[in-house]
Amino acid sequence: MTAKPPEGVFVAESEIEVRYAETDAMGVVHHGSFVIYLELGRTGYMRQRGHDYSSFERTGHHMAVVELNVRYHLPARYGQRLRIRSWIKDMNRRSITFGYIISDVVDNTCLVTGSSRHVCITEAGQVATIPEPWICWRGS
Amino acid sequence: MTAKPPEGVFVAESEIEVRYAETDAMGVVHHGSFVIYLELGRTGYMRQRGHDYSSFERTGHHMAVVELNVRYHLPARYGQRLRIRSWIKDMNRRSITFGYIISDVVDNTCLVTGSSRHVCITEAGQVATIPEPWICWRGS
Amino acid sequence: MTAKPPEGVFVAESEIEVRYAETDAMGVVHHGSFVIYLELGRTGYMRQRGHDYSSFERTGHHMAVVELNVRYHLPARYGQRLRIRSWIKDMNRRSITFGYIISDVVDNTCLVTGSSRHVCITEAGQVATIPEPWICWRGS
Amino acid sequence: MTAKPPEGVFVAESEIEVRYAETDAMGVVHHGSFVIYLELGRTGYMRQRGHDYSSFERTGHHMAVVELNVRYHLPARYGQRLRIRSWIKDMNRRSITFGYIISDVVDNTCLVTGSSRHVCITEAGQVATIPEPWICWRGS
Repeated sequence: MTAKPPEGVFVAESEIEVRYAETDAMGVVHHGSFVIYLELGRTGYMRQRGHDYSSFERTGHHMAVVELNVRYHLPARYGQRLRIRSWIKDMNRRSITFGYIISDVVDNTCLVTGSSRHVCITEAGQVATIPEPWICWRGS
Repeated sequence: MTAKPPEGVFVAESEIEVRYAETDAMGVVHHGSFVIYLELGRTGYMRQRGHDYSSFERTGHHMAVVELNVRYHLPARYGQRLRIRSWIKDMNRRSITFGYIISDVVDNTCLVTGSSRHVCITEAGQVATIPEPWICWRGS
Repeated sequence: MTAKPPEGVFVAESEIEVRYAETDAMGVVHHGSFVIYLELGRTGYMRQRGHDYSSFERTGHHMAVVELNVRYHLPARYGQRLRIRSWIKDMNRRSITFGYIISDVVDNTCLVTGSSRHVCITEAGQVATIPEPWICWRGS
Repeated sequence: MTAKPPEGVFVAESEIEVRYAETDAMGVVHHGSFVIYLELGRTGYMRQRGHDYSSFERTGHHMAVVELNVRYHLPARYGQRLRIRSWIKDMNRRSITFGYIISDVVDNTCLVTGSSRHVCITEAGQVATIPEPWICWRGS
């Protein structure tokens, strides 16, 4: 299986290499480790768009994960190099939904696809409007 | 928000206490830690039904995660005691889908709901029929 | 090998069961997971002494880990029940050193021994005197 | 504080960036995450020496961690870039001890120093002689 991100939107690419600690007794990457890879994908997206998540937090906001959907197509193994492609599937004034494809760097086989929805909150936990300049990513 | 498992099915209950290592710099439990809690929920389910996951693996099979869906309603904090309720939402000869509710032990507030689908595979990675006695859980 | 905590001091006991996510592709518990178990041991110690780590943090202090020493004698496996015994090896006004033994619940075989040293710091990261009532644990 | 690896030995350098999931509610990297960084350091060492850990495992052997010593000098934060320097401190026919320094990429401040000792075992868990070509690393 191969999978493709949508056309006409900014797609960030990050590369990682599977760590030994991320595997489990089944001999492959634990399914929970891919949840961390998705996080690396979207933080890579933010950096590649020019405004990383550290600077987002310095505005006094967090992006709380409110929904996570992952489909596991093929296992990954220790040492395997993976490419994470991330893009914005949907965005409004208070939330962002990212889409993801994780594939093998060498043969481009798709291992995992997923999405995650995030709501902008203040440090006190109140839902808030996404601050500048991130709010400008709508429609991109 | 409160949430309820369906009636008429076996519902397993497990209790855990949030570990410090499961929190992140946002001050609350990292969303990936809940994925581990779901795993504890379904392995607790298997043990409470009388046939735990260790004995499942001794038949030469694994339950590979093929789909994961999680909704995060409220954050959890270090030291908080959580109840994980788990049940079988759907099951056929080769796969099981679990449903989950994670709530606060004290006030029963619902923090997370989710589901995960698993396919029975051999050690060589081939899809296989779920062995006895687990296959009998269909319709329960 | 069996190992014994010192006599004449308070020794806390905690029990855990190995989680699947804590194993690695070697088929046994990843060595890093035992570092988490030690943390569970000392937070269990604090709770069993009557003043848990949550209340310690509410005084505006943290216990920063400054040193960690672990010896791995035998591997642990998925589902294995482990007992963590924890005690104070050494303590002064600003730091505590815990000692640990992790053993199998059933046959008491010693799997891991270790120690960790912690310094009391303020939220700003400055070294500080351990507050009451924890400071009273000296000599116990 | 700065720290230096010994002279006259091969020193591997790896770079990582702190992941959000590696932080904890103290706002800094959890001490257990540095244990994973050390693992990245020594697997980076093996790759940079030309014979990585995947190929080591394909000989039917594992390197079991038997001892771990870590000193934490300064905290690390989300997004910080870290350099891990790794070298062989000691080695005999059956075991290797690695030394490590983790420092900030930008200002070279030393955050963590440590060492870990590993014993070569067969898949059945028996202590074994380190196979070629790794055994040749003695004295280097």
